[in-house]
Amino acid sequence: MSRSALRLLDVPNDPQALAEAVGTGMYSIDPATQAMGVRLEMIAPGEARMSMTVRHDMLNGHQTCHGGFLFAFADSTFAFACNSRNLNTVAAGCTIDFLAPGFEGDVLTAHAQERSLAGRTGIYDVTVTNQNGKSLALFRGRSYRIKGQVIGEMPEI
Amino acid sequence: MSRSALRLLDVPNDPQALAEAVGTGMYSIDPATQAMGVRLEMIAPGEARMSMTVRHDMLNGHQTCHGGFLFAFADSTFAFACNSRNLNTVAAGCTIDFLAPGFEGDVLTAHAQERSLAGRTGIYDVTVTNQNGKSLALFRGRSYRIKGQVIGEMPEI
Amino acid sequence: MSRSALRLLDVPNDPQALAEAVGTGMYSIDPATQAMGVRLEMIAPGEARMSMTVRHDMLNGHQTCHGGFLFAFADSTFAFACNSRNLNTVAAGCTIDFLAPGFEGDVLTAHAQERSLAGRTGIYDVTVTNQNGKSLALFRGRSYRIKGQVIGEMPEI
Amino acid sequence: MSRSALRLLDVPNDPQALAEAVGTGMYSIDPATQAMGVRLEMIAPGEARMSMTVRHDMLNGHQTCHGGFLFAFADSTFAFACNSRNLNTVAAGCTIDFLAPGFEGDVLTAHAQERSLAGRTGIYDVTVTNQNGKSLALFRGRSYRIKGQVIGEMPEI
Repeated sequence: MSRSALRLLDVPNDPQALAEAVGTGMYSIDPATQAMGVRLEMIAPGEARMSMTVRHDMLNGHQTCHGGFLFAFADSTFAFACNSRNLNTVAAGCTIDFLAPGFEGDVLTAHAQERSLAGRTGIYDVTVTNQNGKSLALFRGRSYRIKGQVIGEMPEI
Repeated sequence: MSRSALRLLDVPNDPQALAEAVGTGMYSIDPATQAMGVRLEMIAPGEARMSMTVRHDMLNGHQTCHGGFLFAFADSTFAFACNSRNLNTVAAGCTIDFLAPGFEGDVLTAHAQERSLAGRTGIYDVTVTNQNGKSLALFRGRSYRIKGQVIGEMPEI
Repeated sequence: MSRSALRLLDVPNDPQALAEAVGTGMYSIDPATQAMGVRLEMIAPGEARMSMTVRHDMLNGHQTCHGGFLFAFADSTFAFACNSRNLNTVAAGCTIDFLAPGFEGDVLTAHAQERSLAGRTGIYDVTVTNQNGKSLALFRGRSYRIKGQVIGEMPEI
Repeated sequence: MSRSALRLLDVPNDPQALAEAVGTGMYSIDPATQAMGVRLEMIAPGEARMSMTVRHDMLNGHQTCHGGFLFAFADSTFAFACNSRNLNTVAAGCTIDFLAPGFEGDVLTAHAQERSLAGRTGIYDVTVTNQNGKSLALFRGRSYRIKGQVIGEMPEI
């Protein structure tokens, strides 16, 4: 059976079904996102929403959530949003602004939305909020599409 | 014994000795930096250098080091540099550009240097390199000084 | 007559009327915004919309609108939005992403919206579009409130 | 005569001579940089230094140099540095941090240096200082190489 035939069998045509299949597939091979306890709540073409509980081992010396983990959480959500069309895409660069601290036990939500997609590059905004709806961080990611697909490709023989 | 008397006993006057004492003190109460296995290699006024080995649980779905962990590593180094004068300082915002991927087992070095310090705000550049000296990421952090000191303060009663 | 009495006479209480008075007042003393031919189309608390026609002397060596003028246009709009409550506010830093080129004669619109305001610092997003509604640039500005008001203060004697 | 033969005649082989030829050529067709009164002081492969005097029509409502003109000045210097190898290159995005105000009559210097160049993308840092050596702004630009050369190409017939 040819490789392209296999692909047609494996990958949904419907954009929403494809996004969900990509989400499940990416999550299953993403050790960092799993290790942070991040949960994929929603994925759609160009969009994703995830949640994460702030653990003790995510605190910094000020006993608030380490900015690196707020970033990593936003960055994962960005990654799922920008790969949601099943085209391999990586982060070229990101900016984050910290608005308020997170604390141990806080349940955070990150919501990534596509602001622009042209050629190989896209811009995504991610907002991180806590369980009270307070915004903790605003993140903007620049994506760059590379070769390959996220799911549905056979290993080359 | 008065609080200020205690502080004089506990905190070095020499800027380099103070930076080293701050580094040791911050590290001991920073669960996130410890949990990532980050090692503090050098600290000086306005400067810090740290190292980190990329672990399996830091990989993303592309099997390269999750950008969030490159960021968190740079961000920790930034935090140690901008707190090195024993004045409590937090990150207001950061920008990162990803230049090349990191892989499992890579031994990364982050070097933070102060570019500007005026009033309560500072700018710090951090370069993340791998064991071959290749640059993986350029990070720029904006710091904001808040109340209090990092070490040498008694808990309020 | 006391200074505070004068201020009460001069400055509207209604937030929308105040924003409009600030817009008129700022524009009249802003040579750069005037020299670029920027027009203030709308101002409200935390928001502003301006327009600008791309002139020949705004072109770069690629014969497209110089990124600096796209930035300056977005930055002016940001400035009007973040000063709209009549509290003197300056830019601490900004990020811009260029999505598509502008050409001579294009009529551009910049729309600034407040994303966050806490203490002395705010985050504003500005979108620059052309006459066809195409997005040319996404701008994010970080504001910092300083002493004084924009309008209604008497010069100190 | 063929197009490639013409190119060989027109364009220097030596990287420094090429950078200088590109600088002269770019400047001559860059209306915005000329209109701002920017002077090209030095250009080398991956590097440029320019100067600019702050004029009245560059002031904002606070009577300091409009951040957009500090940006535009840094952005021009970045453009000359990233095109200095005679490969057409545009800005993808930029970040600027404002450290201190500029005033009318100040003579500013912008110095752009390449921090990274890999594939089509590069990172450049630009520092803007005044006549006293005080840093007014730190700028970081992300470049993207497109088709074509800056100088030495014949118009297509």
